[in-house]
Amino acid sequence: MAGNQAVAYLGPGRVTVESIDYPGLVLKDGPGVHPANVGRKCDHGVILKVVSTNICGSDQHMVRGRTTAPAGLVLGHEITGEVVEAGRDVEFIKVGDLCSVPFNIACGRCRMCKEGHTGVCLNVNPERPGSAYGYVDMGGWVGGQAEYVMVPYADWNLLRFPDKAQAMEKILDLTMLSDIFPTGYHGAVTAGVTTGSTVYVAGAGPVGLAAAYSALLLGAAVVVVGDLNKERLEQARSFGCETVDLTEEGTLPERLEQLLGEPEVDAAIDAVGFEARGHGAGAAEAPATVLNSVMEVTRAAGRLGIPGLYVTGDPGAVDDAAKEGSLSIRIGLGWAKSHSFTTGQCPVMRYHRRLMQAILADRAHIADAVNATVIPLSEAPRGYAEFDSGVARKFVLDPHGLIGR
Amino acid sequence: MAGNQAVAYLGPGRVTVESIDYPGLVLKDGPGVHPANVGRKCDHGVILKVVSTNICGSDQHMVRGRTTAPAGLVLGHEITGEVVEAGRDVEFIKVGDLCSVPFNIACGRCRMCKEGHTGVCLNVNPERPGSAYGYVDMGGWVGGQAEYVMVPYADWNLLRFPDKAQAMEKILDLTMLSDIFPTGYHGAVTAGVTTGSTVYVAGAGPVGLAAAYSALLLGAAVVVVGDLNKERLEQARSFGCETVDLTEEGTLPERLEQLLGEPEVDAAIDAVGFEARGHGAGAAEAPATVLNSVMEVTRAAGRLGIPGLYVTGDPGAVDDAAKEGSLSIRIGLGWAKSHSFTTGQCPVMRYHRRLMQAILADRAHIADAVNATVIPLSEAPRGYAEFDSGVARKFVLDPHGLIGR
Amino acid sequence: MAGNQAVAYLGPGRVTVESIDYPGLVLKDGPGVHPANVGRKCDHGVILKVVSTNICGSDQHMVRGRTTAPAGLVLGHEITGEVVEAGRDVEFIKVGDLCSVPFNIACGRCRMCKEGHTGVCLNVNPERPGSAYGYVDMGGWVGGQAEYVMVPYADWNLLRFPDKAQAMEKILDLTMLSDIFPTGYHGAVTAGVTTGSTVYVAGAGPVGLAAAYSALLLGAAVVVVGDLNKERLEQARSFGCETVDLTEEGTLPERLEQLLGEPEVDAAIDAVGFEARGHGAGAAEAPATVLNSVMEVTRAAGRLGIPGLYVTGDPGAVDDAAKEGSLSIRIGLGWAKSHSFTTGQCPVMRYHRRLMQAILADRAHIADAVNATVIPLSEAPRGYAEFDSGVARKFVLDPHGLIGR
Amino acid sequence: MAGNQAVAYLGPGRVTVESIDYPGLVLKDGPGVHPANVGRKCDHGVILKVVSTNICGSDQHMVRGRTTAPAGLVLGHEITGEVVEAGRDVEFIKVGDLCSVPFNIACGRCRMCKEGHTGVCLNVNPERPGSAYGYVDMGGWVGGQAEYVMVPYADWNLLRFPDKAQAMEKILDLTMLSDIFPTGYHGAVTAGVTTGSTVYVAGAGPVGLAAAYSALLLGAAVVVVGDLNKERLEQARSFGCETVDLTEEGTLPERLEQLLGEPEVDAAIDAVGFEARGHGAGAAEAPATVLNSVMEVTRAAGRLGIPGLYVTGDPGAVDDAAKEGSLSIRIGLGWAKSHSFTTGQCPVMRYHRRLMQAILADRAHIADAVNATVIPLSEAPRGYAEFDSGVARKFVLDPHGLIGR
Repeated sequence: MAGNQAVAYLGPGRVTVESIDYPGLVLKDGPGVHPANVGRKCDHGVILKVVSTNICGSDQHMVRGRTTAPAGLVLGHEITGEVVEAGRDVEFIKVGDLCSVPFNIACGRCRMCKEGHTGVCLNVNPERPGSAYGYVDMGGWVGGQAEYVMVPYADWNLLRFPDKAQAMEKILDLTMLSDIFPTGYHGAVTAGVTTGSTVYVAGAGPVGLAAAYSALLLGAAVVVVGDLNKERLEQARSFGCETVDLTEEGTLPERLEQLLGEPEVDAAIDAVGFEARGHGAGAAEAPATVLNSVMEVTRAAGRLGIPGLYVTGDPGAVDDAAKEGSLSIRIGLGWAKSHSFTTGQCPVMRYHRRLMQAILADRAHIADAVNATVIPLSEAPRGYAEFDSGVARKFVLDPHGLIGR
Repeated sequence: MAGNQAVAYLGPGRVTVESIDYPGLVLKDGPGVHPANVGRKCDHGVILKVVSTNICGSDQHMVRGRTTAPAGLVLGHEITGEVVEAGRDVEFIKVGDLCSVPFNIACGRCRMCKEGHTGVCLNVNPERPGSAYGYVDMGGWVGGQAEYVMVPYADWNLLRFPDKAQAMEKILDLTMLSDIFPTGYHGAVTAGVTTGSTVYVAGAGPVGLAAAYSALLLGAAVVVVGDLNKERLEQARSFGCETVDLTEEGTLPERLEQLLGEPEVDAAIDAVGFEARGHGAGAAEAPATVLNSVMEVTRAAGRLGIPGLYVTGDPGAVDDAAKEGSLSIRIGLGWAKSHSFTTGQCPVMRYHRRLMQAILADRAHIADAVNATVIPLSEAPRGYAEFDSGVARKFVLDPHGLIGR
Repeated sequence: MAGNQAVAYLGPGRVTVESIDYPGLVLKDGPGVHPANVGRKCDHGVILKVVSTNICGSDQHMVRGRTTAPAGLVLGHEITGEVVEAGRDVEFIKVGDLCSVPFNIACGRCRMCKEGHTGVCLNVNPERPGSAYGYVDMGGWVGGQAEYVMVPYADWNLLRFPDKAQAMEKILDLTMLSDIFPTGYHGAVTAGVTTGSTVYVAGAGPVGLAAAYSALLLGAAVVVVGDLNKERLEQARSFGCETVDLTEEGTLPERLEQLLGEPEVDAAIDAVGFEARGHGAGAAEAPATVLNSVMEVTRAAGRLGIPGLYVTGDPGAVDDAAKEGSLSIRIGLGWAKSHSFTTGQCPVMRYHRRLMQAILADRAHIADAVNATVIPLSEAPRGYAEFDSGVARKFVLDPHGLIGR
Repeated sequence: MAGNQAVAYLGPGRVTVESIDYPGLVLKDGPGVHPANVGRKCDHGVILKVVSTNICGSDQHMVRGRTTAPAGLVLGHEITGEVVEAGRDVEFIKVGDLCSVPFNIACGRCRMCKEGHTGVCLNVNPERPGSAYGYVDMGGWVGGQAEYVMVPYADWNLLRFPDKAQAMEKILDLTMLSDIFPTGYHGAVTAGVTTGSTVYVAGAGPVGLAAAYSALLLGAAVVVVGDLNKERLEQARSFGCETVDLTEEGTLPERLEQLLGEPEVDAAIDAVGFEARGHGAGAAEAPATVLNSVMEVTRAAGRLGIPGLYVTGDPGAVDDAAKEGSLSIRIGLGWAKSHSFTTGQCPVMRYHRRLMQAILADRAHIADAVNATVIPLSEAPRGYAEFDSGVARKFVLDPHGLIGR
């Protein structure tokens, strides 16, 4: 049980693969670990041998230096793996089980967990409700872009795949259950997407693609994806979406009217968040532009799903208000249209089982939709760099060479 | 069928009572009537003899000159009355029926109406979804602070009281069904208030009081109302609310902690809207302050009901962004807490029947909660002035002297 | 405006095509017309030239003599057509519009309609809530298996297709919007079917096939259809369902376990109703057998959608209790499993727009799923006979030869 | 830590108080313990010193000999107590905490628990989903009508009262949180009761009274309770219900019409279950009569909440079908009215926190509503006998003399 190779953040623009301690059933001190969490015993936890772990757009916020993440932070909150050790208080999850790990860490014992809001569990992050592996200000749980990782409250958190061999055949789809597929699906669900809906998805990064794919899975009539990135729009078209290239002529309502016969949609999803840029080539960062444009194109009484991340603090923001997470939002427009808005982390547990069932029954092919691309753990730095360059890929790290593509 | 006395807006700070035409089953030209609505036939409508009609806080926005309302606009969208004439297409409402009129005008035939979104009916306002009597940019339907008024699509819009004599005994409660009671209730419902909730209501004007009363009716454990106006806070305490005087020392979270043992509530309602002022005596207008403070005090996964009006254009706003309805909102904070937000006009029809039932069964006493105060129609200008001064009263105009208090 | 050929019920086992009056905007006396409805004026109605009108399984109940339907009753409640005349009070539907007619007749003005329960409208059937065209005890509205038919409350009831030429290309799909597609979809929705669900559909007649198709559209992982009829099961397999031939060996839980790996499903739909037969070849009628078997195979906390018709009176029933609609139901089993049940007519208006959108966007192909088969109106008697024999076909009558297959 | 006095079932009509083992954090063999549960370790459990434990109507089913409960079964599933020992896996509940125990035992780790269906937990009863303390066929967890009891999965199951002194002052209200208050509330919620509803509650036993009280708490306009027992009806009137004495003249619809002006209600609750008797003095047991009568008096599109227990096996039933839990139900009537039905154990955890909040804020007084009556544990046999005689009392056992009334 020698070493444990893992991806660590070093500073703006820099990640590396380094050897860290093999995990135990305790949360030890380290970069980013909240003092109140140091030494926390986790007999309810398991050690996972990581089978796959994905690079997420929200990791990029840290790597770009847009957060206060400390050097040495081990990254990774999209984790799938096999249980190699189980704490004495783990009753239903067994050694050998192959499982998906929701990126939200949750205790399964607080009011929020009991009510299904596992994205804002009260007991895992001493600072505020809500937690995640390998993420700044999220309690200090060690990230899973590693060979091995500890998962607390395993009976509650883990989703066991019913058949390991079958699961390994679909591992590139199943690896998306830890975050991106439920997150996109949550965006679509909270936007009210149902059979026959017309939908606008802002952003064709992996979350946007997962939201668009989910909207189709939920029966949407037409899904239109907008972005500035031609390659990512091409990816959206590959599974049946319409697209709007925002670098081209025409307002968004005009473009929708050309596609749909009307300038508005039934439902809209903001899959961009606070690092939004203005439309038009060379546009500067304009953090509220996506939120305002989705209000503009959503019909009266429509709902907006907002899986795109908005933060409470952004040291790299364009102005002082934005540095505190305060943006200039056209609330008057939303009010006039009787809009509803749903924000926040996706509570993965609410959706992962049903999406797993859809994958296993061959009814959902999310890996193709987001263009899953497997690379060894050792090449994670290249993955981060390419992802940051805007390629239409979702990078899946393969720490043990078990996926083998 | 002599005259028809009515309340008209003359210009900033000025309303008068003047004689206007007796209404017919057609929408004639006049101040604020949209050209596309001129001459619109309303054989589906009725003429009401107005029994009671209330002054609303949203009327004040016009009277204060914060809108583009034209001089001569006849005001009034909170209407209760007796049918004195019915169009040929009216089948179930009969002459003699005493009815409540939802302030939202709705056709009962479009997609929005069929889906229960009568606040954004597609067929009554040529400019955009949603309409109301006597209101700027709402299609030009003549207001009901008058002796007589025409109500279109009467079978759809009107709520008939089952027993006229019984209804006249409770007319001060029933008159609140046209707007304020459902609007407050909608705020509470969309904030997720249920049995045992702790609730914060921002604003102790009539909508805030109705929201607080509704929260109690929905079973809230504790309702805290915050305002700068001592008299209105006293009114909130009269029916069992806790209060926070925002002119006094202490942040809102601190004040809530004193009252509740914790600095957050389960649900919050913004019953103020865009004319919000900063906390502290003498504070200037700060249009996003209420929205930001309700986010601050609402717990994770909580919901915010926003019946307070936010507008798309505000000529009197403090800055250029606010003039277009764009406010600096701490969306990052809301996102971190996984908040949901519901905005827009209350679709009165969704709630008025159930609230009528509660009133008639003597289970809801909204008139006392908002301190209903009857004055003759002729004294409407005084009512507007007193209401604007911040008295804790809801003025009910009595055009025909039928209420008699 | 000469004649009006129509399908009439003559007596058990006998239907004919005969000439009836051309419809007017009034409900005249005739077979099955409730006295209180005779002479009812319908200036809110339109006359439709019928483009397509389908034979429904519930028509069969009448034709088999299982009801008190009077001789001469004109049949047909699944209607699609073009408006050729509009009453003076019809405002938004225009002559020339091609429209789908919900089989539920609804006024759009009563409490039930306002709350979305158009299947139990209070104002169209003097006997009890709920109505339909051409159906016993449903108020006496003349059936639409005819060249022309009158549709009351047209602005409320009709769903206009946005583009006539496009609609005619998909008319065999769109004709299913009047009843069977929404009815099957309602069964799936009320059973709680969502992404990843496992579903059992009892019955592979047209409603069962539509329910199964809808379950897939809603994202079900696996849909299993059970029936005694091999041809209909083959039809279910044609669009991706698993099937259980109930004439073969093995209990239903055993058969499900073979297909799914467990003996229960997440959701079940009873698409059979009171004319159910026992399992096994040659089994007699056993009216509660389907309801009891769906309880048996639905998991704890599951929901059951029951679009299959259960009646309050059945002169041909197997025992006295069943003659009054009282069946021996294993309620103790359902209770132990915490089941929920939803019964009743599908409120078509709740779903038809979204399903139309899915059809027009080429996302739903219901005609193929139910094997739509066009025949001339004159051959309706043959259609009834073949349908009764158990063929896997949904017969679409083509009164004017406009469909032309 | 000497003995542990407890109430045990001896045979039909006979209960006693006897000394049993002091509980440990393991489920030992004993009367009614399922073999697969024998020896089950419960390091996730706590030992409670029982402060109050109530006699439930469902205990009566066993005591009357209507089940297969074995002699020696220790009774009691309505438990409130103080933690005196906590297992090593208990993290958030502490020794000294005063807590309410949901009668449903749930693991907090299975799919059902994660989805909020704690009444049908998959991991606590080897026979079928769902479990309870001291109940036949529910896994064999030792009952809590005792001085001490073991509660498994304590972090998940227990609801801690925030202030012990305050809680002891309201202990007679809080003791109802373990079953009867949430069960009645669940009946009302699933029947769709909301502001302004008219409600019929069948049965004025403790569950019926709790349902009626809950309906009022949810804002019902009028609640009508029907029963054969005058004393219990008097109790219902004590907190504002209308009543129907079913031993008197007149059908139920007629009686409702006298009270409400119409023969139907918006929502109905069956709080009787399978031991229902026919109406009229001296009527025999008629197990479906309540279910059929609530269908008769519920309006179209209404919902029925069915907290009253229906069983899968009833050795004392009136006929063979009923012995298997199969009853003759007027499903045809329900279908014609588009009724929905919700059955099953109340998932207490869904509601107990909010009801606790309402009690602690002095907004709910359930003890008075059900006439809570404290007796020593030693007098449990008298309590059972008196309760069986039909007194309008809810007996609360006080094992340690801590309540002292």
